[in-house]
Amino acid sequence: MPRYAYVNGRYLPHDAAGVHIEDRGFQFADGVYEVVTIQGGRLVDEAGHLDRLGRSLGELRLAWPMDRPVLQQVMRQLIRRNRVRDGIIYLQITRGTAARDFRFPEAATPTLVMTTRRMNLDPARQVAAGVDVVTIPDIRWKRRDIKSVALLAQVLGKQQAAEAGAFEAWQIDEEGMVTEGCSSNAWIVTGDGRLVTRDASTMILNGITRQSILRLAAEQGLQFEERAFTVDEARRAREAFLSSATTYVMPVTRIDGRPVADGKPGPLSRKLRESYRSYAVGAGAS
Amino acid sequence: MPRYAYVNGRYLPHDAAGVHIEDRGFQFADGVYEVVTIQGGRLVDEAGHLDRLGRSLGELRLAWPMDRPVLQQVMRQLIRRNRVRDGIIYLQITRGTAARDFRFPEAATPTLVMTTRRMNLDPARQVAAGVDVVTIPDIRWKRRDIKSVALLAQVLGKQQAAEAGAFEAWQIDEEGMVTEGCSSNAWIVTGDGRLVTRDASTMILNGITRQSILRLAAEQGLQFEERAFTVDEARRAREAFLSSATTYVMPVTRIDGRPVADGKPGPLSRKLRESYRSYAVGAGAS
Repeated sequence: MPRYAYVNGRYLPHDAAGVHIEDRGFQFADGVYEVVTIQGGRLVDEAGHLDRLGRSLGELRLAWPMDRPVLQQVMRQLIRRNRVRDGIIYLQITRGTAARDFRFPEAATPTLVMTTRRMNLDPARQVAAGVDVVTIPDIRWKRRDIKSVALLAQVLGKQQAAEAGAFEAWQIDEEGMVTEGCSSNAWIVTGDGRLVTRDASTMILNGITRQSILRLAAEQGLQFEERAFTVDEARRAREAFLSSATTYVMPVTRIDGRPVADGKPGPLSRKLRESYRSYAVGAGAS
Repeated sequence: MPRYAYVNGRYLPHDAAGVHIEDRGFQFADGVYEVVTIQGGRLVDEAGHLDRLGRSLGELRLAWPMDRPVLQQVMRQLIRRNRVRDGIIYLQITRGTAARDFRFPEAATPTLVMTTRRMNLDPARQVAAGVDVVTIPDIRWKRRDIKSVALLAQVLGKQQAAEAGAFEAWQIDEEGMVTEGCSSNAWIVTGDGRLVTRDASTMILNGITRQSILRLAAEQGLQFEERAFTVDEARRAREAFLSSATTYVMPVTRIDGRPVADGKPGPLSRKLRESYRSYAVGAGAS
């Protein structure tokens, strides 16, 4: 069975799917994206991801390439064609193709690309062991709240993590506070059992999974604070974890090579992972 | 006559030239570029641009897609095919196509794209009147010395300039100092006739035209300083101008709507423009 990609109205064999060399996504990183998880054939947090897509588009004054319900139909069609039960759907929208000029083109049709990928959403060994993170300076631009494809800093950060044998790199701002991972949000559990994650601002991307975890935590009566924390506080924390659409809640057991607490995934991280998984499998999905 | 683009070994009709949707340039802005001016069929500052391309590639640990002399042959071939006398050649190199993952792919062939465009390199009326700039906060990432395609901040800045009726936006760092324009370097002439432009660091892209102007200034015995300056100093300056591969030296006569000096292009700007043009037409070109 061939794998299809959706590009500007057409379902194409993945290998043959292209965009023009003067697509503004290719020349200027002038575009946005979303990654939505597919769990058991269902989209997880679909509304949240599409809301954020709308926000990113708005911040860049990009139009929806089609009405949102139609876009949702295309997503479903592609998932069906590619028979994805567990995995992701990736959506990218750019300002379209136009003769190269930094300024917005007078008339360009937005480019819409979608791909899917099958993925194991429950990497049991990784979850059981937890993952390592390293810390790096946050060198990104100042509009991290926009989920744009200008991801070069994150590419370099993730590569640096990989070369250090780590799963993720936590980025540190000029005040020494953790902003977030290169493709995930950062969390700790304090000595008195409070969940802490950075408050949403232009300094971080407000993760959809992050928001769902906060909602689940509130429903369960857990104490949480949205505030910045230092690497030092994270190292001394009772637990640490990261969150993203594909990793859900993933325990962090080492930071820069040093164990967090006893170096094992903590109970609250495990509990939140299970809560989120239940939510993803069940009621939260469409 | 069709216009050709060069893409990964092939000369294609421009309209049909594409890259894969999983090209890392499209998904991650994981690539670099150069714009080289063609004046009278000759490449201006070719060696400088290719040196900088090599530096950008090195900073991102990207390989040259082919040996530099071969790449230069391709450039000449494309210019010949497209019969460009005055204009530009645009080169873009990305990390290639690979399944989407922030980390560098194990094995990917770099993507090489080249296009040309004819252009009037001597817009006499614009030069005679000078151009307006507006000032905006510099929100870019911290590796501005790499000429990467992660240009979204510059896109937004240039659009903001255009909507204000200005030609360029000068970006202001957190200390209130001008870094540079969104696609040009910024210059002033002080009351005592010294040329000033920001020193080269990770805070700016070290323009090839900027470097040639400094060399020409030195040859002519002009006094110059490479240092940061404020918007206020620029407003009070005797002259201001900007430089880039396509604009050469372009007088700046208004900043945020207020005239620089008497609001007319100054003599040193005019002189440097003429020097640079002579250089571009003649000995400096290959």
